[in-house]
Amino acid sequence: MTDVVAVDLGGTNIRAARVNDVGKILFRDKMPTQAEAGMAAVVTNIAQLVQKVRGPATVAVGVGTPGVPDQDTGQFRLPACNIPGSVGYPFTTELARQICLPVVADNDGNLAALGETWLGAGKDKHIVLIFTLGTGIGGGCVINGNVYHGHHNLGTEFGHVSIAYNGRKCACGGIGCLEAYASASALGRDAREALRTDPAGQLSALWKMCSGASGLEKVDARLVCDAARNGDAFASALLDRCCNWLACGMGSLINVFNPSCVILGGGMALAGELITSRVINHLENSFHVYKPIWKDCKLCLAVLGDDAGILGAARMAWQKIES
Amino acid sequence: MTDVVAVDLGGTNIRAARVNDVGKILFRDKMPTQAEAGMAAVVTNIAQLVQKVRGPATVAVGVGTPGVPDQDTGQFRLPACNIPGSVGYPFTTELARQICLPVVADNDGNLAALGETWLGAGKDKHIVLIFTLGTGIGGGCVINGNVYHGHHNLGTEFGHVSIAYNGRKCACGGIGCLEAYASASALGRDAREALRTDPAGQLSALWKMCSGASGLEKVDARLVCDAARNGDAFASALLDRCCNWLACGMGSLINVFNPSCVILGGGMALAGELITSRVINHLENSFHVYKPIWKDCKLCLAVLGDDAGILGAARMAWQKIES
Repeated sequence: MTDVVAVDLGGTNIRAARVNDVGKILFRDKMPTQAEAGMAAVVTNIAQLVQKVRGPATVAVGVGTPGVPDQDTGQFRLPACNIPGSVGYPFTTELARQICLPVVADNDGNLAALGETWLGAGKDKHIVLIFTLGTGIGGGCVINGNVYHGHHNLGTEFGHVSIAYNGRKCACGGIGCLEAYASASALGRDAREALRTDPAGQLSALWKMCSGASGLEKVDARLVCDAARNGDAFASALLDRCCNWLACGMGSLINVFNPSCVILGGGMALAGELITSRVINHLENSFHVYKPIWKDCKLCLAVLGDDAGILGAARMAWQKIES
Repeated sequence: MTDVVAVDLGGTNIRAARVNDVGKILFRDKMPTQAEAGMAAVVTNIAQLVQKVRGPATVAVGVGTPGVPDQDTGQFRLPACNIPGSVGYPFTTELARQICLPVVADNDGNLAALGETWLGAGKDKHIVLIFTLGTGIGGGCVINGNVYHGHHNLGTEFGHVSIAYNGRKCACGGIGCLEAYASASALGRDAREALRTDPAGQLSALWKMCSGASGLEKVDARLVCDAARNGDAFASALLDRCCNWLACGMGSLINVFNPSCVILGGGMALAGELITSRVINHLENSFHVYKPIWKDCKLCLAVLGDDAGILGAARMAWQKIES
């Protein structure tokens, strides 16, 4: 039986796993990225790790990264993980040369979507969107089992759909981006601001949980979710507003893609039903989606956790072999 | 040489054309739809018109309509042209039975996109989006020469992307839909409202063009564009605001699709450069699009006019034959 090696290239660590053709992880390992050493050194690190993880029957390597590798040339079109020299570096070609195996690379948001569609919440679904709720909001789209890449693999920036033409400024430079409203960072920031300025906040359980003014910097999306789960009305209202914004951006994309399945992933989605129930409520009752299209769609939580990207990278490597 | 017949089923008229494999229209004709007679009668009308327009070497028929025919069953999933009994009617099957030719049907927004990609502004482009600016805002997306259909052909509702989570109520029931801000109807309505309530409006050339208060109902998007073209600052500001909204929705979709080409079509796009220059300005300077993705994209005007849908229907019929 042959297998593939899947690599998750992050800013801090490189993770790799040997994966068979039904998605079973046979062996895994990791090492520090050493991003500061530059792209050539990072590629050598990846090659070393792949040599450790691969078996005698390994036939291809798939790499996921926050960067944007061009699907034709294998070069990064935008900086990857703040690694110096990443843009324009012949990433897949050089890695393939060092390990003597076919290499394919893609953005990790795309691969999380592919992994969940292969083995997780979107299994066997026709058209799958994933929203990855974390520091930012990542996106990915899988159509008939294949990642949607756009013209140059720059698309599916679901965090940079605007929900307010004159709204908040986003870190990307955009106006009203969903990410500036509904990411975990945005929820944490909004909660700290509300606790600081809204007298009701200081009567809340959330205020007690962070030990008041001196502990405000401890307030993050997770704490807001914990407080909301415990029945704190103040935290619940903050979370509800955040989910309304998320539903607005998500509803627009449901109207556009007519997906069969929308998956919520990322750290914030670990709050589960606390979030999905609010998002569904706002989709339906705040009129953020066209009903006949929504009826066609299932909203669910990611199930593969941290392995979604690795399994997506494995699937991509298998697709490379099959094509 | 074989040919196909392309049909445009509208609420008032049915238009049909015989089209060869390079998109040359060989013959055309039309007849009243008689929508009020119900779906079975309309199909008989279409069959009659097709018999008139077809030649001895006609091999297939493609039909475009504002409705949403299911790609598998050929039944309408939503009402078509307010024709009684359209939902669930076995449209393509029945038409094929009457004319003894293969029949394929699709939404006219999709087919306008396909027509422009086959022979017009999006010719040979990898990923094409079209925004059809008229009473509403229609949308279509063509990827590698094929219409994007979504799970059940309900997608690419570009007019129902929200640009304001707490904004205007749309006719579809949604909140903040692009169509409620940037369609020709919305621009006309906003202009009439501004002339009625803003004292500066009554000093404008637009006010004179409509003969003042008594002629307000004559004010529509075309008149606003005419006044703006003639240098009326009041009309120009109205158009500019409208184009900013359009750029906001369009920018979100460019961030999502990473298209190689975005086409503006429909009646309002006849204003040409007056609109494209403003949209491009707002995309770039009001930060509605992520620059690396925008650099990858070309904005242009539709060139096929009323024939985009007919030619798209012809192309779809050819694709049916080829597949």
